[in-house]
Amino acid sequence: MARLSEAQIQQELSQLPHWRREGEAIVREVRCADFKEALLLINAVGHFAEKANHHPEIHNVYRHVTFRLSTHDAGGLTEKDFALARQIDALLE
Amino acid sequence: MARLSEAQIQQELSQLPHWRREGEAIVREVRCADFKEALLLINAVGHFAEKANHHPEIHNVYRHVTFRLSTHDAGGLTEKDFALARQIDALLE
Repeated sequence: MARLSEAQIQQELSQLPHWRREGEAIVREVRCADFKEALLLINAVGHFAEKANHHPEIHNVYRHVTFRLSTHDAGGLTEKDFALARQIDALLE
Repeated sequence: MARLSEAQIQQELSQLPHWRREGEAIVREVRCADFKEALLLINAVGHFAEKANHHPEIHNVYRHVTFRLSTHDAGGLTEKDFALARQIDALLE
């Protein structure tokens, strides 16, 4: 899985308004209705992560969940990160 | 729920060797067998957290999970934190 070029990253990000760039990662913060919903979201994202064998960094404080995506093996952002970002967005539509 | 005194905190911590103090919180880092086990652990802890209406800060990277406990309403550590810490430990025995 090849690291994306800066132009490719900007192109991908332009289609993902809920995500922001943080160095070699992209980040989305979500405010759920409550902790139970946050846990359901984490589990659903975990399902996609396991299927793709590509795991986000997950941070949870009560109903707040932050996902941080990066491809450590590639040393930066790859198509895997944007594919998972789109799956996370689909869960939150 | 009253904030514990420093002596009480030290007494509690002396019985919880897997936990370390970090300012107004206690922290335990767990390395699970894999991501699926990490997710199972997060769910089990979430169950106890919901029952007690006392929620940890949770950080997950693949098979690594960090729990950080503090009672924000009390501005520090209370018996609620140590009760949840013991429940987390019981899941990991």
